Amino acid sequence: MRNVMDNQAIVELIQNEDYFLITSHVDPDGDNIASQLGLLSIFKELGKHAVIVDQDATPVAYQFLLNDDVIYHQLPPDTRYDYSFVLDAANLDRVGDSVVALIQQGNGVINIDHHTSNTRFGTYNWVEPEACATAIVVYKLAKALGVTLTPEMATRLYAGIITDTGRFRYTNTTLETFEVSADLVRHGANPSYVATQIYDQEPISKLRLLVKVLSSLQSAADGKIHWLQITKSCYDETGSNVYESENMINYATSIKGTKLAILFREMENSDRIRVSFRSKGFVNVDKLAQCFGGGGHAAAAGARIPGTLAEVQQKVLTEACKWV
Amino acid sequence: MRNVMDNQAIVELIQNEDYFLITSHVDPDGDNIASQLGLLSIFKELGKHAVIVDQDATPVAYQFLLNDDVIYHQLPPDTRYDYSFVLDAANLDRVGDSVVALIQQGNGVINIDHHTSNTRFGTYNWVEPEACATAIVVYKLAKALGVTLTPEMATRLYAGIITDTGRFRYTNTTLETFEVSADLVRHGANPSYVATQIYDQEPISKLRLLVKVLSSLQSAADGKIHWLQITKSCYDETGSNVYESENMINYATSIKGTKLAILFREMENSDRIRVSFRSKGFVNVDKLAQCFGGGGHAAAAGARIPGTLAEVQQKVLTEACKWV
Repeated sequence: MRNVMDNQAIVELIQNEDYFLITSHVDPDGDNIASQLGLLSIFKELGKHAVIVDQDATPVAYQFLLNDDVIYHQLPPDTRYDYSFVLDAANLDRVGDSVVALIQQGNGVINIDHHTSNTRFGTYNWVEPEACATAIVVYKLAKALGVTLTPEMATRLYAGIITDTGRFRYTNTTLETFEVSADLVRHGANPSYVATQIYDQEPISKLRLLVKVLSSLQSAADGKIHWLQITKSCYDETGSNVYESENMINYATSIKGTKLAILFREMENSDRIRVSFRSKGFVNVDKLAQCFGGGGHAAAAGARIPGTLAEVQQKVLTEACKWV
Repeated sequence: MRNVMDNQAIVELIQNEDYFLITSHVDPDGDNIASQLGLLSIFKELGKHAVIVDQDATPVAYQFLLNDDVIYHQLPPDTRYDYSFVLDAANLDRVGDSVVALIQQGNGVINIDHHTSNTRFGTYNWVEPEACATAIVVYKLAKALGVTLTPEMATRLYAGIITDTGRFRYTNTTLETFEVSADLVRHGANPSYVATQIYDQEPISKLRLLVKVLSSLQSAADGKIHWLQITKSCYDETGSNVYESENMINYATSIKGTKLAILFREMENSDRIRVSFRSKGFVNVDKLAQCFGGGGHAAAAGARIPGTLAEVQQKVLTEACKWV
């Protein structure tokens, strides 16, 4: 829920303070990078000093959003920051140990997010679970601050919206999504440019991996379940890496009649199997994943389950068949 | 360009007349079906009598838009129509011979379209080349008629927008695209429902075909060209058909460094090879396709070239290498 007093406190804090740290969760995604850079643009526009420090590297697909800015992975020497903005993270653990240590040295934490499960860990919290992306919350912050959107700001925030909605495809896509997108385009976001940068710069290795993944397609429960797998050797044989397998579960979801899609992935240096679940509305996969010590959202969830690929597949498919 | 007098004449014709035929081009796509059904919804709302007759069958992916309506492929007996609405067709040839014959029996033709190459073949023409979809032109017609958008109308027109922009991805995606989409969502279009119906009801055969297509990936011109092929036997071996290969060229386009993507397809009952071209902005593929008697748009074009697969590939790749 919105806390109007907190929102106003955040606006006033930005107006009164000058030195900020910006961060987000490990395993960065589009909305994570876009929201941080969008907020950085706002601070630049207001003449504030801010630095982004993330624990993990920025995925190649989102590096075009940087322009002349930098996302650091260690605090640059002699950097002053009095308050830390934590974006798109449901709880503080999600930002990673090294960044939590930095945050604890500041005067306070401003929590900007859209996850339903957000724990309100901040000194001040601006959390909107109904927003499709944290970029939308940052957009509202810009409006509350009276900042005129620049093309850079608009481009960055638009990138957050399209990645967190799967290009206006997921159930979080609402009227607000389109109204804000229209305003961002009005202020200089170029939809085809952003989509091309994010979706049309793929390494060939990803297509080679996709061939292997699609070749593994199998069905269960009379076609109500479709599942895919990636063994460790797939990465070596195709020159790809685990990041390139992101979203490949969507191919299993896309099949007519599928109620539940599952992707099994062997993990490097681990005796666990990473299992991803997607639902088309019939199964609450958050609850299904909880059976295996995992969790997530009703439509998208995951777990890391000990055992061999064959063992985990048998265990998970036996349970999953009861849910469809 | 818009012709305001024609637009007003079309509004008045709809107000004054009662019996209409609606049609569109052969080889139907999303915008084609969506625009026709959107216009049908408008006519229903106004208490008019209208019937849709298309030469070709309606693709499965768009049949959810029908609700209780019917798209005919022959004129039902004793159907009266005084004027014909031709949607999303650049010229009259595109609607197919059997439907052209029907149109010629009416009192006049109303041409509603967004193709730059539209020949203004109608008695009245409402053509907006800057619109991302014919659905946008139908939306404007509804506004001009003072029709309040129903959820059915909004859902249909929204489907036209997402299919003709590739879910807000192509260069035709503009501020108007988002403003109209927002208004359609405001009036009852459900973005995730529509996307799920169109994109998540795929036959398994399509994934099997995709494996074959991706396995054929090759590059030329130091990776500036990436190309794919589909032989006749691919369809039999996977249980798929030519319709399922639509948009697979996008995988070649998606690769980093690609300036030009090409898909070669053997055709049933033909000694020609169907060649599709996509550009990421560096090459005008309309002009490239014209070298082979084809054509299209600057970013997407095609040709049907006589010869064996190997012959056509050699000829096209030799020419294409000069363009990148």
